[in-house]
Amino acid sequence: MVRLKIKDILQNGKTGEKTLVKAWVRTKRGSKNVNFIALNDGSTIHNLQIVADTEKFDEHLLREINTGAALAVEGLLTESQGSGQNVELAAEKIELLGKADPEKYPIQPKKHTLEFLRENAHLRFRTNTFGAVFRMRHAMAFAIHNYFNQKGFYYLHTPIITASDAEGAGQMFRVSTFDPLNPPLTEEGKPDYSKDFFGRPTNLTVSGQLEGELGALALGEIYTFGPTFRAENSNTTRHLAEFWMIEPEMAFYDLKDNMDLAEEFLKYLIRYALDNCRDDLQFLGNRLSQEEKNKPKEQRSMDLVEKLEFVLNSEFVRITYTEAIDILKNSKPYKKKKFQFPVDWGVDLQSEHERYLVEKHFKCPVILTDYPKAIKAFYMKQNDDDKTVRAMDVLFPQIGEIIGGSQREESLEKLEKRMDEMNIPAEEMWWYLDTRRYGSVVHSGFGLGFERFVQFVTGMGNIRDVIAFPRTPKSAEF
Amino acid sequence: MVRLKIKDILQNGKTGEKTLVKAWVRTKRGSKNVNFIALNDGSTIHNLQIVADTEKFDEHLLREINTGAALAVEGLLTESQGSGQNVELAAEKIELLGKADPEKYPIQPKKHTLEFLRENAHLRFRTNTFGAVFRMRHAMAFAIHNYFNQKGFYYLHTPIITASDAEGAGQMFRVSTFDPLNPPLTEEGKPDYSKDFFGRPTNLTVSGQLEGELGALALGEIYTFGPTFRAENSNTTRHLAEFWMIEPEMAFYDLKDNMDLAEEFLKYLIRYALDNCRDDLQFLGNRLSQEEKNKPKEQRSMDLVEKLEFVLNSEFVRITYTEAIDILKNSKPYKKKKFQFPVDWGVDLQSEHERYLVEKHFKCPVILTDYPKAIKAFYMKQNDDDKTVRAMDVLFPQIGEIIGGSQREESLEKLEKRMDEMNIPAEEMWWYLDTRRYGSVVHSGFGLGFERFVQFVTGMGNIRDVIAFPRTPKSAEF
Repeated sequence: MVRLKIKDILQNGKTGEKTLVKAWVRTKRGSKNVNFIALNDGSTIHNLQIVADTEKFDEHLLREINTGAALAVEGLLTESQGSGQNVELAAEKIELLGKADPEKYPIQPKKHTLEFLRENAHLRFRTNTFGAVFRMRHAMAFAIHNYFNQKGFYYLHTPIITASDAEGAGQMFRVSTFDPLNPPLTEEGKPDYSKDFFGRPTNLTVSGQLEGELGALALGEIYTFGPTFRAENSNTTRHLAEFWMIEPEMAFYDLKDNMDLAEEFLKYLIRYALDNCRDDLQFLGNRLSQEEKNKPKEQRSMDLVEKLEFVLNSEFVRITYTEAIDILKNSKPYKKKKFQFPVDWGVDLQSEHERYLVEKHFKCPVILTDYPKAIKAFYMKQNDDDKTVRAMDVLFPQIGEIIGGSQREESLEKLEKRMDEMNIPAEEMWWYLDTRRYGSVVHSGFGLGFERFVQFVTGMGNIRDVIAFPRTPKSAEF
Repeated sequence: MVRLKIKDILQNGKTGEKTLVKAWVRTKRGSKNVNFIALNDGSTIHNLQIVADTEKFDEHLLREINTGAALAVEGLLTESQGSGQNVELAAEKIELLGKADPEKYPIQPKKHTLEFLRENAHLRFRTNTFGAVFRMRHAMAFAIHNYFNQKGFYYLHTPIITASDAEGAGQMFRVSTFDPLNPPLTEEGKPDYSKDFFGRPTNLTVSGQLEGELGALALGEIYTFGPTFRAENSNTTRHLAEFWMIEPEMAFYDLKDNMDLAEEFLKYLIRYALDNCRDDLQFLGNRLSQEEKNKPKEQRSMDLVEKLEFVLNSEFVRITYTEAIDILKNSKPYKKKKFQFPVDWGVDLQSEHERYLVEKHFKCPVILTDYPKAIKAFYMKQNDDDKTVRAMDVLFPQIGEIIGGSQREESLEKLEKRMDEMNIPAEEMWWYLDTRRYGSVVHSGFGLGFERFVQFVTGMGNIRDVIAFPRTPKSAEF
């Protein structure tokens, strides 16, 4: 007999059908005559209720059916009497596949803190919350591939181990096979990297963009979706040392095309979540409301589904950085000195400023463009004003910047000049500059931090709760 | 005016339509009166032919139209007079977007060796061969996600930086933020890893399987698709230091279910390639025939499309390792001492043996099962004979092993005993063993090396030619 998944049983099961299910026990309750066992196999947030007449089954067997145990149950589907589902399974045969000692199994049917579950990340997939989070993470990853494939973009695997520091984007992890105590040395007493595995110093990538541009300037439109790394000592709810990024890069796109793509892309993903993850969204929305119920009303989040629909139905406002500075300088919190960080033309905006623009001023997602060149990377296209570059940041409610991108500088001369000003060694970047030497074209791209986006669609407050096994300072468990 | 992609123009373009195209020059030829310019934008292997009356355009402009230059061309589609396509574009406006100096641009319209193009990997996407390879690599990656998503598998991102050595699978790359010359030391003079970024020694992952099992034993069916690493000093056409692996892991699957999945999966991918990549396959097939035309007939490969159709239409033979040893011992090459490596029960099979079974004996893909436990990993399910484990390797023509997998040992007791025999520290694997302590079930999984598979479908002989920027000993360029 073929086992059915619980999702299929609950959606398509007909009363009277003989059915085999294999799954894990979430809860058991009951009386002397009948046991109700809630089973979950990961295919849906919902449990299948098993009804077991105690007289049909061995007492010893029933005693082993505890939370976390694995069962195979055969029986007939019957109309449900009140489990919240259409059908339940009247057990005829129950096989105990794997026990779970209730004295030892950590995931008991009670409220666990997210911190506790993080310490038990190997088992937290077995909870409602993390089942929902990881199903949605999957759905969003699939939607990303689907979106780009439909549009004719090619998925490019850019290198993880790299000898280049793409953006000077902060501290990097070194990759080496040297004996850590006795690396071979040069005559000058420096590590002799010519003897290391790759014959040179290597790091974990901070971005696939520069290699992505090489692909785009031949294949037209590409995207990356891979792990990236930052060796920053940031112990926050927003930072990971290892996280996944999506970086589309497109030949013949100017900044407007880039903004259009970013907006369409984000809306596609949100629409996909609303269309395909309703049950999980509902559960996660309720979880969030519960979590926040003791907060003052004005600090509570918008309802999760409402928030997604709100973004989906908004036309993103597009203004320049300079216009944003003006708005901020004329704002109440600025005048009342409520902002913690300064607002002056030339400084990078902080989360408080971004959220003011999105949540208070425009009340919708905002795309800021044309940032001061001093606070942006060398490869961004320079405007004629000699002060700003054709950067764009997409700002979302609650999280601030969710996408950062730009039109890229296609002029070899301007790019070399800017690299020189910023002390970026052009000779190491010969391959990048070659794309401007030969058949250079207008092109653009952006980056989306996958975990930040999954936080947005799941409502999870801590980034460590949307990746399976988070890597953070002093922690690489599992 | 909106630019159209060349793929769309060649498929759907109607004569008389006003059309804008932006692309790179592949070749230019012509006479005093007319220039024929072949343009490619990466959307297809085929070029769009531009017909430019020399009298309509500036002489200087026409002189700058060299291989590698980027153009925007506006004109009317006309019936093609012999470019091999239905339509060509009669140019009305030509804009030179980016030049390519014919004295310097490396990718001239002549035959380049694959070695030369590897040294110019940043530009090789602009050739027919690598355009086709990377479009097919994309198509196969998308097909993988599509297959698993349709079957209800969840994509799980397992960690890249890890403190565990999943299979003892050989040398690993260390990941650290220590000063390479002066790492902090313990009192005993060892590196003080408590002061390293993660507070312990960390490496790049060799496999996501063990973490994948954690996901499967809660969510049901998961798969990974991510980079994995081997610090092996192997300079061959089959090895990379950084490569991508797909590792599905399924609760409630025994070895037969595992084999069924592997066969269905591979056939799905091949069917997808045949249905969606015909033009690129045709080109790559011709390339391979050209490459091999000077080889003796018996050493030539099967035609690429024929090879894929052959695998698609075969039922994979399934035999045990022990049966395979018998077949090999009774084979002609064994009796004539033509095998380089020994054939004895207990030794690992070599590529020559695998290829004999597939190409000579059965003449179809073969799945070998139940290998000697001594040559397989600790986590494989032990058979009752106490000699073999429920491993499976899928063997393909030309490349030998393409998939390796097994049913996993679900018994805590047996697993602990085997780990003890193999000196694997159980205390570091507490989280893995927990899945056998709590709700353990029959489960299985396998791994597919993505680049090996892309080699198979593209016919490329060197693994460095199917990944954008290969990482190999002494090489981490770009």
